[in-house]
Amino acid sequence: MANLSQNQNVVDMKRARQLSTVDPKKLSIFLWGETEWEARQRILSILSNDPIFDKSRRPFLTRTQLYTRGLAMMSRIHELTEQHQWSSDDVALAFKILDEPLPIQLHMAAFEPVLKSQGSRELHAKYAALVAHRGILGCYLQTELAHGTNVAALETTATYLPATREFELHTPTPTAAKWWIGALGRTATHGVVQARLVLPSGRDAGPHLFFVQLRSLEDHRTLPGITIGDIGPKAMGGYAAVDNGFARFERVRIPKEQMLSAFAGVTDEGEYVRPPHAKLSYGGMLYIRSSMVSSAGWTIARAATIAIRYATVRRQGTRREDGLEQQVITYPSVYHRLLPILGRAYVFILLGRNLSTAFTALLARLSTGDTSLLPAMHATTAGLKVLASTTAIADLETARRSMGGHGFSAFAGVGRLYADYVPAATYEGDNFVLDTQVVRAALKAFARVASSAPAPGAVGEFAPNEAYLRRLADGGAGNAGSGNSVSTDSWGNPRSVVALLERRAACMVRERAAHAADPDASMDQRVARAVTDAFVAAQVGEVIDGLEGSVGGKEAAVLRKLYALHLLTTVESGLADVLSFGLLGEAGPAEDPSRGLRVAIKRLCEELLPEAIGLSDGFGFSDWELDSALGVYDGNAYETLYKMAQLEPLNESEAPEGYEKYIKPMLERGQRLAGAKL
Amino acid sequence: MANLSQNQNVVDMKRARQLSTVDPKKLSIFLWGETEWEARQRILSILSNDPIFDKSRRPFLTRTQLYTRGLAMMSRIHELTEQHQWSSDDVALAFKILDEPLPIQLHMAAFEPVLKSQGSRELHAKYAALVAHRGILGCYLQTELAHGTNVAALETTATYLPATREFELHTPTPTAAKWWIGALGRTATHGVVQARLVLPSGRDAGPHLFFVQLRSLEDHRTLPGITIGDIGPKAMGGYAAVDNGFARFERVRIPKEQMLSAFAGVTDEGEYVRPPHAKLSYGGMLYIRSSMVSSAGWTIARAATIAIRYATVRRQGTRREDGLEQQVITYPSVYHRLLPILGRAYVFILLGRNLSTAFTALLARLSTGDTSLLPAMHATTAGLKVLASTTAIADLETARRSMGGHGFSAFAGVGRLYADYVPAATYEGDNFVLDTQVVRAALKAFARVASSAPAPGAVGEFAPNEAYLRRLADGGAGNAGSGNSVSTDSWGNPRSVVALLERRAACMVRERAAHAADPDASMDQRVARAVTDAFVAAQVGEVIDGLEGSVGGKEAAVLRKLYALHLLTTVESGLADVLSFGLLGEAGPAEDPSRGLRVAIKRLCEELLPEAIGLSDGFGFSDWELDSALGVYDGNAYETLYKMAQLEPLNESEAPEGYEKYIKPMLERGQRLAGAKL
Repeated sequence: MANLSQNQNVVDMKRARQLSTVDPKKLSIFLWGETEWEARQRILSILSNDPIFDKSRRPFLTRTQLYTRGLAMMSRIHELTEQHQWSSDDVALAFKILDEPLPIQLHMAAFEPVLKSQGSRELHAKYAALVAHRGILGCYLQTELAHGTNVAALETTATYLPATREFELHTPTPTAAKWWIGALGRTATHGVVQARLVLPSGRDAGPHLFFVQLRSLEDHRTLPGITIGDIGPKAMGGYAAVDNGFARFERVRIPKEQMLSAFAGVTDEGEYVRPPHAKLSYGGMLYIRSSMVSSAGWTIARAATIAIRYATVRRQGTRREDGLEQQVITYPSVYHRLLPILGRAYVFILLGRNLSTAFTALLARLSTGDTSLLPAMHATTAGLKVLASTTAIADLETARRSMGGHGFSAFAGVGRLYADYVPAATYEGDNFVLDTQVVRAALKAFARVASSAPAPGAVGEFAPNEAYLRRLADGGAGNAGSGNSVSTDSWGNPRSVVALLERRAACMVRERAAHAADPDASMDQRVARAVTDAFVAAQVGEVIDGLEGSVGGKEAAVLRKLYALHLLTTVESGLADVLSFGLLGEAGPAEDPSRGLRVAIKRLCEELLPEAIGLSDGFGFSDWELDSALGVYDGNAYETLYKMAQLEPLNESEAPEGYEKYIKPMLERGQRLAGAKL
Repeated sequence: MANLSQNQNVVDMKRARQLSTVDPKKLSIFLWGETEWEARQRILSILSNDPIFDKSRRPFLTRTQLYTRGLAMMSRIHELTEQHQWSSDDVALAFKILDEPLPIQLHMAAFEPVLKSQGSRELHAKYAALVAHRGILGCYLQTELAHGTNVAALETTATYLPATREFELHTPTPTAAKWWIGALGRTATHGVVQARLVLPSGRDAGPHLFFVQLRSLEDHRTLPGITIGDIGPKAMGGYAAVDNGFARFERVRIPKEQMLSAFAGVTDEGEYVRPPHAKLSYGGMLYIRSSMVSSAGWTIARAATIAIRYATVRRQGTRREDGLEQQVITYPSVYHRLLPILGRAYVFILLGRNLSTAFTALLARLSTGDTSLLPAMHATTAGLKVLASTTAIADLETARRSMGGHGFSAFAGVGRLYADYVPAATYEGDNFVLDTQVVRAALKAFARVASSAPAPGAVGEFAPNEAYLRRLADGGAGNAGSGNSVSTDSWGNPRSVVALLERRAACMVRERAAHAADPDASMDQRVARAVTDAFVAAQVGEVIDGLEGSVGGKEAAVLRKLYALHLLTTVESGLADVLSFGLLGEAGPAEDPSRGLRVAIKRLCEELLPEAIGLSDGFGFSDWELDSALGVYDGNAYETLYKMAQLEPLNESEAPEGYEKYIKPMLERGQRLAGAKL
């Protein structure tokens, strides 16, 4: 019986792979693109065979050890880069393949781009090669102890001193200490500091950027006038290998040339030189936010792979005729949680690629001084950042919890993903603050449409992020009569579901405008979600239309269902709003108009169920990447879990460290008090 | 400016306390009861002044160190118990005051009660005093590596051997290893094991309980035939101080007397003796589940206190005339998240006390062999366990995220609560499995009501957990016409909101019965929630009615609003269902029937806002208990955060451990590649 029960896991996984009709490799290429997929496999094989990147002791390391291990990995990738002549895309891919945040990512994602886009040519000429080759290591110092969301309120000052052509950086109050700065704590040698530019006239020109050396390149000691430290551990052990730090500046002087002056500067005498367009500097933030969509997708993909694999081999419930319990994935309450997550990963990954393309177009326009695309891109990326991070966080936890008790083991691997991912709701713009920006843009667009009353069907007048407003014109949002309510049959038609989600967004924006003086307390959140859902739905509709051409074959048929499931579950999660505006037709105690939707979701799930393993294999993760006992490729979850537990340091001695000091005296005292000695 | 900005936190907190009209001490006594409040203060003062319970180094300890520290705390409480002659209630209170799970809690919550309720008189006589005084330390071995939810499928066997009057405990397969057993890994000396009773006839009588010694009382070595270890770290660092363990038994023999035979046993010859009522043994599980309601309340209370205090002193946004930014708690998107959480804490704490009373009544009946109250209690506690744990987990994360970036610092203190609390969704019955049990009970009750067609208004016929079914009889669920839909004014009347929630539950159960053959995939979850929401709402309605008598004065007026807010936000979170059944009247694109509800919530929040600090002070937590930089009583959040960060071990040396080995070579290599040396 020992072997039978053991191997059943493996048997179940093999059988599930046989049932699946999709070709995982074809899906991988669909998701990654052929070139990136090949680069990825090449780099993956190098990393996963190098002992520096071994993960087996990771769950037992202290934070200091995890930080040191992170340095070792950074340094090793630096060596490999030279050895294999990796391009910067290869290097980015290498860090993406690792499943944990490292200090160097701040150098790559924040320090380097901001220096490049906003530094003067001279500064660039001097430092670009050093930055690119990590001859210096950078960080980006914006947030302060008491100032995050509201950049305009930052307190750190950079006072221009014309006599010496220097800026004096200063931290005027304890709450002005820079805080949360990734890679500042113990790694970075240099930084770009956000500080209020104070002119000789006394005028405060608001936050600007300054390039500063923080530590000696000889011995890593902090330079005079600067106090730096690590801000301590993060919640749930997240971001352990990143040294988020604090810094205080005590009248630290830097040469005038170290202001990042591509868009704004001061003359030698201390006159302010205006930026040509204040918004030109937003590009970097937009880039980070838009890249968060695909990273949300890939993060969800990891959790979905693990949870679906474990639910496939895990059996619980009444024993059937063959003596086996039921596979957990076949329970409606399980597949109804996991399949939409799988779909969301596929959606966000493709959406992220579309965004990259859009972003490249934006940059080309910006370089010519044309900022016309900026507002739409800003609203779109803000909405998507909120949607992707909020749902990804929820999905990680849903996936973890779907695994029952073992989901709470560190060896399941999803808790670690959660702890590292959860700050995404707050960094790069708190989601609740971004919601209000999405709503502001939507109200502006609504006012424009309402006043100019475009001709029905004039779709061409709408930017993609405002396309849902055409529903105001086509009568769909104005009248929920039989012509517009969704009948049961239409759940099978993606176009009518997209239209429904657009109608919902249009109704909600109009309602928000009608109550501009007194919106309810959660309205902005719901409006922003509705607007972004509509945008994503339209994109998903286009992806569905293009599947035959992009992937074709059986894969196209299966993906069509997966994307359709995404549309339906989007309606399901926004059902309160959809019903509020009567968009499903009349409701009544005897007849639930949402029943048709829910049943359609169940049917789609049932059809997708045999494809779940194939679709998750399609992400292409190796066991080393997932580092999960429950998500191993061959399904051998329990044996792997057992093996991993044997490494726990507490198991090194039978009587633990505290036995003589605490347990034994307690037992003896207890026996004395009980009047018994065993 | 340094002092001004620093002290503003303290000024803001003082002002908030002045604005509040409630007396926190009066609220504390309302929540705890006078006797328990006094006991609590007495014990709190002892613990918080004892260096063994110091928390300042905790964020930096390894898991082994946290386990050892846990042993030290257990041992110290044991000493204090003898020294101060604490009662067992006092001891329970002491562990409750600590904010982390410890191995001894398994002894107290599982081992001791199960031995007491299911052991024979003889076994009890021999071990009761030892167990009570911790002369032995116990654990409860039920879950196996591949068997959790479905107890009937456990594999471990206890084969009776009449020749020697012994049981032979055996682990037949690798997947039958006991797993997740709290306090087993390195602490417990004894355990109660769930194992299938195998009789000499070969008959398998299913799982029964057996008392087993695991480790030597001399040197703590594992006894022959037993393999024990710790299962390793938990997700997000949760439950670090608990040694959840695994165990395998290799034909381990124990005397016949060690079967827990109060309800079932074997004769010397090996005949099975039937239990008088199989369900009598459910008492313990019901007790643990029902106690989870108040512990959910107190856990939410900690997070609510921290988040509300920080939102009160944190300022972000446009500077106002006085030069200060806006207090974060005054943003609708913030108070709309935090005040309902505050309300939920008050609800679950009181509900938990009511449940204790109901449980005492149940025990009295059970002791006479009367099991008539069991089914209702089972359904109620299952539903409440799901509701309390699911919402508490969500509330902890909502509170953490409301604090923006700093919420992700370990020093905020909420991430730790989350990591320790999150397994509550899975232990003591996976929430998704319990949902189906709630639904099964509801369908049974519905069938009974539907067939016997009770006279309208016959409320007396319904058990409290089925009271919502009276709405089937009073026409309310059958007809959502003008007479039953909720008008805007009625949001102010708790009774009509309770009635609405009962109508929703009745509609949903009827709908579930109508689609018994093909419920949608999330239906059981929604039905269970609706039924439990209705039960809680009715209880809250009664609490509101009794406030004048129970607390009186200004506090009664404020609590009335807080409990009313709970009712309204319950409707809000179930809005999709409420609207599905047309229970708010007609919906249409131009008129959103939920607007009245949402505005009523906003108004209530606005009225409660000045009371938020007073209401959270009412929980009575000390700074030592909360151990949160952001939730300090005096509001001095930023200074406290700064101080805590200075203790981070990474800050001990300027150049970190990996500098010479990793950072320096990388910088030098980078400078060489860049062709530059700085």
